[in-house]
Amino acid sequence: MAQVISDRRDVDFVLFEQMEVEKLTKHEKFAEFNKKTVDLIVSEARNLAVKELLPLQEIGDKEGCKFENGKVSVPKGFHKAYKIYREGEWLAMADDPEVGGQGMPKTVSLAASEYFTGANCAFMLYNGLTHGAGKLVEEFGTEKQKELFLGKMYSGEWSGTMLLTESEAGSDVGALTTSAKKNDDGTYSITGAKIFISGGDHDLVKNIIHPVLARVEGAPEGTRGISLFLVPKYRVNDDGSLGEFNDVVCTGIEEKTGIHGNSTCSLTLGGKNECIGTLLGKENEGMRNMFVMMNEARHLVGLQGFSVSTAAYMHALNYARERVQSKSLTDPRGESVAIIKHPDVRRQLMLMKSFTEGMRSLIYFTGLCYDKIKISDDDQEKAELSGLIEVLTPIVKGYITDKALEVTSHGVQIYGGYGFTKDYPAEQLFRDCRIFMLYEGTNGIQAMDLLGRKLGLNKGESFKFFLSHIKKTIDEAKETNILSGLADTLEAVYDKTIEAALLLGKTAGSKNVEHAFALAHPFLEVSGDMTMAWMLLWRATISAKKLEKIAGSLDAEKIKEKVKSNKNASYYDGQLKSADFFINSILPVTLGKIDAITKLKSAAVDIADSSFGG
Amino acid sequence: MAQVISDRRDVDFVLFEQMEVEKLTKHEKFAEFNKKTVDLIVSEARNLAVKELLPLQEIGDKEGCKFENGKVSVPKGFHKAYKIYREGEWLAMADDPEVGGQGMPKTVSLAASEYFTGANCAFMLYNGLTHGAGKLVEEFGTEKQKELFLGKMYSGEWSGTMLLTESEAGSDVGALTTSAKKNDDGTYSITGAKIFISGGDHDLVKNIIHPVLARVEGAPEGTRGISLFLVPKYRVNDDGSLGEFNDVVCTGIEEKTGIHGNSTCSLTLGGKNECIGTLLGKENEGMRNMFVMMNEARHLVGLQGFSVSTAAYMHALNYARERVQSKSLTDPRGESVAIIKHPDVRRQLMLMKSFTEGMRSLIYFTGLCYDKIKISDDDQEKAELSGLIEVLTPIVKGYITDKALEVTSHGVQIYGGYGFTKDYPAEQLFRDCRIFMLYEGTNGIQAMDLLGRKLGLNKGESFKFFLSHIKKTIDEAKETNILSGLADTLEAVYDKTIEAALLLGKTAGSKNVEHAFALAHPFLEVSGDMTMAWMLLWRATISAKKLEKIAGSLDAEKIKEKVKSNKNASYYDGQLKSADFFINSILPVTLGKIDAITKLKSAAVDIADSSFGG
Repeated sequence: MAQVISDRRDVDFVLFEQMEVEKLTKHEKFAEFNKKTVDLIVSEARNLAVKELLPLQEIGDKEGCKFENGKVSVPKGFHKAYKIYREGEWLAMADDPEVGGQGMPKTVSLAASEYFTGANCAFMLYNGLTHGAGKLVEEFGTEKQKELFLGKMYSGEWSGTMLLTESEAGSDVGALTTSAKKNDDGTYSITGAKIFISGGDHDLVKNIIHPVLARVEGAPEGTRGISLFLVPKYRVNDDGSLGEFNDVVCTGIEEKTGIHGNSTCSLTLGGKNECIGTLLGKENEGMRNMFVMMNEARHLVGLQGFSVSTAAYMHALNYARERVQSKSLTDPRGESVAIIKHPDVRRQLMLMKSFTEGMRSLIYFTGLCYDKIKISDDDQEKAELSGLIEVLTPIVKGYITDKALEVTSHGVQIYGGYGFTKDYPAEQLFRDCRIFMLYEGTNGIQAMDLLGRKLGLNKGESFKFFLSHIKKTIDEAKETNILSGLADTLEAVYDKTIEAALLLGKTAGSKNVEHAFALAHPFLEVSGDMTMAWMLLWRATISAKKLEKIAGSLDAEKIKEKVKSNKNASYYDGQLKSADFFINSILPVTLGKIDAITKLKSAAVDIADSSFGG
Repeated sequence: MAQVISDRRDVDFVLFEQMEVEKLTKHEKFAEFNKKTVDLIVSEARNLAVKELLPLQEIGDKEGCKFENGKVSVPKGFHKAYKIYREGEWLAMADDPEVGGQGMPKTVSLAASEYFTGANCAFMLYNGLTHGAGKLVEEFGTEKQKELFLGKMYSGEWSGTMLLTESEAGSDVGALTTSAKKNDDGTYSITGAKIFISGGDHDLVKNIIHPVLARVEGAPEGTRGISLFLVPKYRVNDDGSLGEFNDVVCTGIEEKTGIHGNSTCSLTLGGKNECIGTLLGKENEGMRNMFVMMNEARHLVGLQGFSVSTAAYMHALNYARERVQSKSLTDPRGESVAIIKHPDVRRQLMLMKSFTEGMRSLIYFTGLCYDKIKISDDDQEKAELSGLIEVLTPIVKGYITDKALEVTSHGVQIYGGYGFTKDYPAEQLFRDCRIFMLYEGTNGIQAMDLLGRKLGLNKGESFKFFLSHIKKTIDEAKETNILSGLADTLEAVYDKTIEAALLLGKTAGSKNVEHAFALAHPFLEVSGDMTMAWMLLWRATISAKKLEKIAGSLDAEKIKEKVKSNKNASYYDGQLKSADFFINSILPVTLGKIDAITKLKSAAVDIADSSFGG
């Protein structure tokens, strides 16, 4: 039977051949995660995804969440799926066993999450946020806070959220007005109204724990005066049992383009002056601390973009192989053929394939960086890897989700008119994924983050470290004859991207700062394209070696022959083709984008507000 | 008050300053359409659009069409709007008075249609198809068919549709199986099942007239054996009164991503063997004849893409001017500012503005070509203009609708998280416009049309004629100092596009035909980018002259000063900025696309089917 959600062969390739996760077993922390165990984990995750989560994807979309009599309910089937998900202990896969996690490498956990999220991103969003909120407790909580909350959150007994946005404080978090007043017992009374809270209220669990950004009375304006509080829906008694309702009132849920299975709530805190929170971390350090969750959330959103892309690709590919329509261009008098034979369909499938594969490698690679930090004793290595993750964050969040819209849109297009109907899942994936470009910092914010913060992070060393990985892949690829041309093209992009980065960085610090930031998003695109090409060339380099072994040489005809009969040859040659397609079809366009950037001018800045018309 | 749907100043610019529609009054056919009359028409259309159609946009989306007890009903408010629309005699604005039209220039009618369609594209689709079906009757109908149907269709008393698609014959129309059997009285008994019929059944009117593609028994296979029939929902008596039900049964309506206000129907014809049609045109010439309607429909879809884009732009622009969020980059300690001050928002607004303006010019220009054909006595001129329209058709349909998705997506993005909610119209426009890339020939089909048919049409003379218009604009722009740089860039694209066209045309005729067609869509993109730049440079050339008059010179500082106080100066400078932005930000990317094309290779063709994975 055709695969759905993800291509298992490719998942395995990235895990074992590209990221070499087995090497992690050398460290005691990951000693038990040998290939057999990892295989089992991925297979179990896939089973759960396909059998329990995927059938609820369409139901979740059609039924949606309900807000009745002040209560929010999730689509009915979600309760059973949630129970199974919890029983499988999937929520804190990559966390330390001492805090209730499964202790597996993050890289491996991402393979599981890919299946779950590709099957049902609305459902998984509840879990992703619970984990992120739990992480805040783990990082900044007092022993008491950990004791009361952490185990219940990491096990999914209770859910978590993140309460940042207010109606007048969206991208501008520093403008928030939710306030906190210290009580005599050290707790805080919280008052305010938050919007766009994913999973802000629902009936999957008995309690929901809200990390809340608020301003303590008298604190400075802007982000410097923001503190982080832990605010449960129901108060928690000293023995961990549930106490009174904590005056966190859901006032409505949003009607949205997609992710209907996830409740997007407006919450009023302390409307009756009875909302009590405890400080998480120190006063006025809330924004900095919240970034621990925001960064995790940004990687989660990148994962969402990727997972929906791979699901869309699998659907489109299966459909293209089955749907018969029109004659082949090379045999116009023959029988009608499956549409995978038509060049424009193939072009779109190749776009979907190469982006999806590049995304998978990037996501797992980022996971591997986390794992390496965890097992490293070398402070410099840890700092370098942390910096690398920071550089990659806006690319993972911003670039992947931009491209996810393109990939899912091709996913719709390949179905022809059927793509616009609810008969097939393609259109839901397209709708669902539109949110990824918006939440956890719009992609415009991600672009500003890359240019304004990450380019100069650690005096530019982190960006250089990022570049050094790409250079290494280019150099390795050059050693393989059939890849040297591709390596040269990527190198040209690499060189010019460095030029553009220097130019933009300099301009961002000058009086022409607006011109620099008008080019921030194009620069994010370029950085993302380069990152995809890096990942695909890396894959191709590994694949060429394997293919040479299988076919005896890298002679084109020999490979072609082997591909017909040998599954691995077919897979590896597909890797060469992905790199070839991306580097020859997309990178020339990337070079054009760099040319536009290095002009360093933008009429978008120069135009008068009035000249926009209207 | 802020404008909605369209920027009237820009509509007027294209009508009077760029297309110079007043010149058409020299011909007796259009003598009465002087500036005053045209102004009145556009104002009336705008009023109707804003007051009657726009308020039904969201209602139509939420309420949708219903299929109950075998009957299809449109959203309730549509009936009143339809009555008003009919009373205004808007359906056949540009058709000859002798067949029931208003006889206005098509160029002018497009300005009215832009407002209507931008206000409510689901509603307008009923009318667009009625007109197209009417056009078939006008072109190919017998006197009797015209007498019975045409007046009632052009007046909107009855609706029209187009019945091509079947479940196994989508893009491959030639595979259809609906059959026609000739009766003794010269009529035909029709049997078959059609799907995806926009407005296929509904309760706006008393009768619906279906042009149906079917195969007469014994006719050749493929498109050569297809005939066109006129099949009413209710038979029509000799005196024009309604007869019996004609066995055209709606079996269901589609659930879709968008355009919920338009019923997309499955129809069974002759299920009880009682469906009677009359031949429209000759037997086996149905496909060729249907192209009259298909071409009109393709231009209609282009208009839809453009209209939804301009509506999205106006919404985003108004929101960006009102929504206050974050400090300015150049004044980080000042007050928070409207988001139009932020460079990345401006970049997105400029993308929306320049694409929308380019689309408007292209759409009106195509209208002008039709008008010129109508009043010309010169056969060569007529043939040239017809060829030009044919070349432009896939660009209007394919390129504009591709870009409409981008424009409406930016329209969502500018709203931040609100963009994903149904609180604002942005998300509906984004959903609605996804169909435009699919129906009336997917954009992949459009790309094949451009490369496979239009490039070589009339031995390439039509494509050359298209190019000659661009060259003329380039040459004129060169004469204006401040535009010569932009003209040079467009010329570089122009030269390289010609190279690419020759190369692709040659390859399409070789054994590497698949490689050529794998590049058909990129070539459509390139041709479209060039066309947009042509339109914007043309606009800029006119605007520079006007600006020079207003400001006394084209000195940058003088212009800047004038823009502050003079509305026209502000508008014209906005035109210079659109051209500047598009040519400096987009065309470098276009050059990159051309580079990728001229490599003439695509791994998408070379890859083995199995190597796609799955």
